[in-house]
Amino acid sequence: MQRKSFGDMPCPIARSLERVGEWWSILILRDAFHGLTRFDQFQKSLGIAPNILTRRLNGLVEAGLLERRRYSERPPRDEYVLTGRGRDFRPGLWALLTWGNKHFAPDGKSVVIVDSATGQEADPVLVDRASGRVLVEPAFRAAAGPAARESTRRRYATTGAAIASTTEEPRPVPRKRRAKRQESVS
Amino acid sequence: MQRKSFGDMPCPIARSLERVGEWWSILILRDAFHGLTRFDQFQKSLGIAPNILTRRLNGLVEAGLLERRRYSERPPRDEYVLTGRGRDFRPGLWALLTWGNKHFAPDGKSVVIVDSATGQEADPVLVDRASGRVLVEPAFRAAAGPAARESTRRRYATTGAAIASTTEEPRPVPRKRRAKRQESVS
Repeated sequence: MQRKSFGDMPCPIARSLERVGEWWSILILRDAFHGLTRFDQFQKSLGIAPNILTRRLNGLVEAGLLERRRYSERPPRDEYVLTGRGRDFRPGLWALLTWGNKHFAPDGKSVVIVDSATGQEADPVLVDRASGRVLVEPAFRAAAGPAARESTRRRYATTGAAIASTTEEPRPVPRKRRAKRQESVS
Repeated sequence: MQRKSFGDMPCPIARSLERVGEWWSILILRDAFHGLTRFDQFQKSLGIAPNILTRRLNGLVEAGLLERRRYSERPPRDEYVLTGRGRDFRPGLWALLTWGNKHFAPDGKSVVIVDSATGQEADPVLVDRASGRVLVEPAFRAAAGPAARESTRRRYATTGAAIASTTEEPRPVPRKRRAKRQESVS
C-alpha cells in the first residue's frame, strides 16, 4: 500500500498516528492500561498473530509508549509496561471509547468510565482546563501554533474554499448554505 | 496481513477503530473539520493516491461519518460533508492533537486549539461533565457497562494478573512493586 510517513507531517495528529502505528497498537495500549504486561497475555486477549504482536510491541517500545523489562532470565522473558508517554494516551483512548459508546453500541454500552470509589458512570467531555469551557466548535477551533511551518499557517489561515480546486467549474452550492457550513466547521 | 474484524469485538474502542478504518481516514476527517469537501481538495491536502482516497471516502460514507452530496451533474461531482456522527469525532481528534503536541513536537506546537473569539490557546483535558473532575486514574477507571458480554465482564472484573499466563514459571517481579503498579492501572 502506498503511504506517506505521517511522522514527517508537521500536524500533531499525523505525528500521533505515526507513533501509535496501527489499530492493534491502540488495543495493546488498552490492554496495557488494564494491567496486562506479558506477551502471552496480550496474545490471549487480542487473538493476534505472534509475529504481528511482536512487531507492534517493538514499535510501541521504540516510540517510547511501552518499556520493555526483563522479568525472567531463564527462560528469557520480557514484560511491557506503560511509560508516562504511553499513560498520557489514555484521554485519547477514552475519547474513542466515548464516541464508540455513543454511535456504535446499538445494544447499549459494554464498557464505561466510572468513578473508582463509587462506581458511578462518568460522562467524558473535553474542556479547557483553565476555564472549564467545553471544547466545541464554533467557540473553539484549531489554529496554527507558534512552531507552525508556512504550509500549516496557510492551512489554518484559510477555509476549505481557499484551497484551489483543480476542477474549474463554478461551485453550484448556494452561497448562503456554504457560508453557514463554513462558519460551523472553521 | 492477518487481521480480526475489530467491529465484531464488544469493546467500544475496537468498534470505533473499525469505523474510522485507517489513519488516512482520521486525516480526511481532520481536513473535513477544516472545511474541505471535495475530492481534489482532500487529494491536494493529503498527497494521497486517488484509489486510496476513493476507498477511504467510501468507507467514511458507509460508516455514516461523511455524507455524499452531488454538487454538479455535468460533470458529475460529489462533495463530502461531516454528519453529526462524524462531527462527534472531534474530541477524539483533539485528544490526539493534544497528545501529539505534548510528546512529539520537539520544535514546539504547530497546531493548537484556540478560543475562536480571543485566539487564546486552550488546554484540552478530559473531565466528567457532571462533576468537572478530571478523568485520570486511579480516581476513574474503565468498567463493564450494562450491555457487557460475559467476556467483557470477566475482563473488567479482573486485573492483568488474573488472566492466566501460558508460561508456568513463578513471577519474579517483587510483590510490592507489582501491587503498586496494578493499583495505578486498574
